[in-house]
Amino acid sequence: MGRSQPGPIPMYCFKNGKIIPYEDAVVHISDLGLLRSYAAFDYCRTYNGRPFRLKDHLARFRNSARGLMLPLNYTDEEIGETIVELLKKSTLPEAGFRLVITGGNSPNGMTTVEPNFFITVEKLPDYPADNWEKGIKLITSEYLRDVPGVKSTGYLNAIRLMPLVEQYAAHDMLYCHDGQVLELTRDNFFLFKENTLVTPSENILLGITRMVVLELCRGVFPIEERAVRTTELGQATEAFLTGTTKGVMPVVQLDDTVIGDGTVGANTRKLTDLFRKYAEGS
Amino acid sequence: MGRSQPGPIPMYCFKNGKIIPYEDAVVHISDLGLLRSYAAFDYCRTYNGRPFRLKDHLARFRNSARGLMLPLNYTDEEIGETIVELLKKSTLPEAGFRLVITGGNSPNGMTTVEPNFFITVEKLPDYPADNWEKGIKLITSEYLRDVPGVKSTGYLNAIRLMPLVEQYAAHDMLYCHDGQVLELTRDNFFLFKENTLVTPSENILLGITRMVVLELCRGVFPIEERAVRTTELGQATEAFLTGTTKGVMPVVQLDDTVIGDGTVGANTRKLTDLFRKYAEGS
Repeated sequence: MGRSQPGPIPMYCFKNGKIIPYEDAVVHISDLGLLRSYAAFDYCRTYNGRPFRLKDHLARFRNSARGLMLPLNYTDEEIGETIVELLKKSTLPEAGFRLVITGGNSPNGMTTVEPNFFITVEKLPDYPADNWEKGIKLITSEYLRDVPGVKSTGYLNAIRLMPLVEQYAAHDMLYCHDGQVLELTRDNFFLFKENTLVTPSENILLGITRMVVLELCRGVFPIEERAVRTTELGQATEAFLTGTTKGVMPVVQLDDTVIGDGTVGANTRKLTDLFRKYAEGS
Repeated sequence: MGRSQPGPIPMYCFKNGKIIPYEDAVVHISDLGLLRSYAAFDYCRTYNGRPFRLKDHLARFRNSARGLMLPLNYTDEEIGETIVELLKKSTLPEAGFRLVITGGNSPNGMTTVEPNFFITVEKLPDYPADNWEKGIKLITSEYLRDVPGVKSTGYLNAIRLMPLVEQYAAHDMLYCHDGQVLELTRDNFFLFKENTLVTPSENILLGITRMVVLELCRGVFPIEERAVRTTELGQATEAFLTGTTKGVMPVVQLDDTVIGDGTVGANTRKLTDLFRKYAEGS
């Protein structure tokens, strides 16, 4: 989790309708996003300088905002144009975009009036090639996010436990709850049982990369999108995560348990390539 | 919960070592308190113009900050003097103080560097006298806060469910989890079984008012501080909440279940008076 450090963040961002210098982008301390963790966000990226599956990200962002009853008064076209302009001003060839909608400045620390909405453009994190060649390790952690279908800013638990992840030389945590496998702190989880692809479907955030991978696998592998029990983790012959900054990344170890023979399996390799070709060709 | 609206917030606050106009008190959008809900706080108040049990509040605040590995580089004396100065500048006879420490401006959206610390002074909420004369209603809600021993800013669930509280004409929610009674969104919960006082002791935030009430009850009532099962709620002859802004407030209904005869019981009345006398005489 703490392995990759995105570089300094470029110098413009969008706030409440205007593109402004990044260093001027502030919120008042009465913002409920700050005072009460009342905020939703989304994160999308470019491939070949073009926003990838932006429509899906915006649909999900709208759904998150709606889940918190926060009105998002910008059309997909407006947001799309803003992102293109931020990318241009950033001079980055590829970039990530963080869209955040907060509860806004509150008169009493509990009631929302008018949300604050901002978009930042960020250098994409640069993960080591070994993550794909050798696969990564995860540790499991008992946790269920608040309102799992909303991509909220609620990462207190994730950040607090980062030292534990580092202590175990792991990439991240795989959240499990009540005997069910859920998701990583910011990514989705898949496993193969031989050629059958299995992935949790409930009490998680439905990732856009997850969605693309499921599309790409239709007709290639039998797919089981369903509740996954933690007892099934030992039966996995391969595993991987999916996420916007990581694409498809192989997982070869969960806690002390090696998955399969501990190397990146053939199905995961195939899928990693399939996804890369799709994303870069899209 | 949404019953009481504290008035406009006075015009000075403290931020990172300085007293500044409230309207100038901002944080950058890279603050992890905003981006990742990584922040702790505390809330204390005055009685007769003097901070009430400030030492206990500050001990708890330090404990919360430590739980998030955030260094709080101010002594109790410095914070105490700041609070007194903010109160003076506010011209309020009595006030509440919100102390907030955040993850600070992050270079990468995950790593803390230097916390932001601020203190605001607020008009105390003004609850209807009926809350004490007739008692209030709570609805129960299945929920366990993240890191319950830390007073974090994690109120996403509480704010999101506020409409439900209003729909049931309730004052607030009583969080329960896995068959255990826990706490309200911002207050602690007590019940009487005849003359025995019972209150949850684990997976909750240990309130300062709760602590004072337990001190006041020693030798007055037999006390059971322990895990409380939700099945015991039906056996309660009286119930009340405790909190910094509310003191001791009687609870006469939980969901559809009336507690005792539905009026404020004699023990709760006695305790409300005891607490008031203690607080106002302190």
